[in-house]
Amino acid sequence: MSESHEILSLAEAEALIASALAGVGVAAPAAASVARALVAAEAEGQVGHGFSRLADYAAQVQTGKVDGAAVPICQRTAPGRVEVDAAHGFAYPALEAGITALIEAAQAAGTASLAIRRSHHCGALSVQVEKLAQAGLVGLMVANAPAAMAPFGAKTPVFGTNPIAFAVPRPGKPPLVIDLSLSRVARGKVMHAKKSGQPIPEGWALDAEGQPTTDAEAALTGTMLPIGEAKGTALALMVEILAASFTGANASPGISSFFTADGPPPGAGQFLLALQPADAAGFATRLEALLSLIEGAEGARLPGTRRIKTLARAQAEGIAVPKAYVEQARALAGLAPV
Amino acid sequence: MSESHEILSLAEAEALIASALAGVGVAAPAAASVARALVAAEAEGQVGHGFSRLADYAAQVQTGKVDGAAVPICQRTAPGRVEVDAAHGFAYPALEAGITALIEAAQAAGTASLAIRRSHHCGALSVQVEKLAQAGLVGLMVANAPAAMAPFGAKTPVFGTNPIAFAVPRPGKPPLVIDLSLSRVARGKVMHAKKSGQPIPEGWALDAEGQPTTDAEAALTGTMLPIGEAKGTALALMVEILAASFTGANASPGISSFFTADGPPPGAGQFLLALQPADAAGFATRLEALLSLIEGAEGARLPGTRRIKTLARAQAEGIAVPKAYVEQARALAGLAPV
Repeated sequence: MSESHEILSLAEAEALIASALAGVGVAAPAAASVARALVAAEAEGQVGHGFSRLADYAAQVQTGKVDGAAVPICQRTAPGRVEVDAAHGFAYPALEAGITALIEAAQAAGTASLAIRRSHHCGALSVQVEKLAQAGLVGLMVANAPAAMAPFGAKTPVFGTNPIAFAVPRPGKPPLVIDLSLSRVARGKVMHAKKSGQPIPEGWALDAEGQPTTDAEAALTGTMLPIGEAKGTALALMVEILAASFTGANASPGISSFFTADGPPPGAGQFLLALQPADAAGFATRLEALLSLIEGAEGARLPGTRRIKTLARAQAEGIAVPKAYVEQARALAGLAPV
Repeated sequence: MSESHEILSLAEAEALIASALAGVGVAAPAAASVARALVAAEAEGQVGHGFSRLADYAAQVQTGKVDGAAVPICQRTAPGRVEVDAAHGFAYPALEAGITALIEAAQAAGTASLAIRRSHHCGALSVQVEKLAQAGLVGLMVANAPAAMAPFGAKTPVFGTNPIAFAVPRPGKPPLVIDLSLSRVARGKVMHAKKSGQPIPEGWALDAEGQPTTDAEAALTGTMLPIGEAKGTALALMVEILAASFTGANASPGISSFFTADGPPPGAGQFLLALQPADAAGFATRLEALLSLIEGAEGARLPGTRRIKTLARAQAEGIAVPKAYVEQARALAGLAPV
């Protein structure tokens, strides 16, 4: 552990983030919800969706880009369909309200969907789909984000890196959780290369003219390459249709930055699906037989294996947060520097 | 048009295939259903799922690998959940019965799923999801198939090439249909290379030892490479869980060949999802705005563009079927050679 980090328990981290957000005027229930989500992401090792977001979120509250007083409006508009208007507040309170209603709907109707519109950055999708698996359901989630990928063959970004996440319950074990973006690498890796002045490998991104580039700065003004070429952008289109056209959210090209404090609210969208297995015991038996084939294959491992280990350690030992982030949070909360 | 082909109208082609299947003892409703599906695939240019399958299907009926007399059992086990036992018959009658019930369930519950077990080769998924879009619903379908892809990093096949298909209605236009497999290329391309004695490009497949190969024969005893490396096999696992663990079907390693007449019934699975947009007009407006961004991007085109043209031509002019297939079908039907 470096001296530049501080160890916080998950409860301490949540309390600190909630105080920081309250300090810039976020309503208490929303602040608590955002804190739970950021800490949950940090705890599973997704630091890009954890503490590192707090300063940007606070700045966006201060400019009004995100409404800290918004209360999500959750409606079950059909036996198996839940719709949430996040009202240009944070995504996390909308997700919490929506997922509670989604679980009820799926338990009653067997299959249910959740469509969230006028939403914001949803962080680690794994954190959200895992809640469905913990309720005994099969969960799927897709989301859109500011445009970063071009349709295959083109150079104009139309899709976000549009993640897909999936979770299933495993009796007596943590849920199996899959969470991936449809770009070959996360855009954050290009940002990191730019900051550290490094070139990026060929195959990650195209420049603004649609040409392959190893220059991180050129890549950030260009587009990220999808997995599977035309197949990847076809999947990104599917995600976009579910997360935006279906929910009533903005399409990716209309979504403002999740990082900067200027501009209109992003109006992003999230789509979730929950399925109740007709025969939970049979489902579990078949699932474990399948997963054992993967665990038994030399060289393979189950998706999410590292995540489960990281999460268990964070729950037992707390998380190491850069001191700069802790001080930032304390300052926002109006607390004296340590 | 070569002299080795015969032009048949779609109705003529369906009648011929139905007669051929009746000739080997398939019950009339099932024979008609299989004929509709094979001709629909052939009409959209998916010849690998069309007439070319007839002889294999007939041989499998004759050995009892597929039950030509099976009647699918369709049950709505929750307001938004339909389950079909295909009873080791063909997949197509199970899909027809299931999709009819799925549409009703989605219209009533807003969201509905269809799980098919003890099923067989389901052909072109595009043909099935398009039916959901034609009913005004957003449709998704996944299926499993004999094991052909290894978990990333391993050499033992655990997943089929596990396709994903998606369709949405477009007012006044044919539905947008996406249909892709999670392998980089279709296994049929490797089979074709083997038949014609050609090498395959690197990156398509691994040999039985998990090493890259350009030898088509070695590739067929090895595994197909996924799109997106570990992301592709994570998506294949998601498909496998939905199409097999959830439905009650065999996992891919337990599915016998869809081509040969020996062995037990495949017991494959299919999973479909149907979503009713809460606001169909708003959905259509947002969808068209999104699609126009793709159509307007230089170098890009919408997925399924060629399919729509091929289908329109087939509906107007009929399909060109190799004479060998026509003669085969006539022989099975007990008709005199032309």
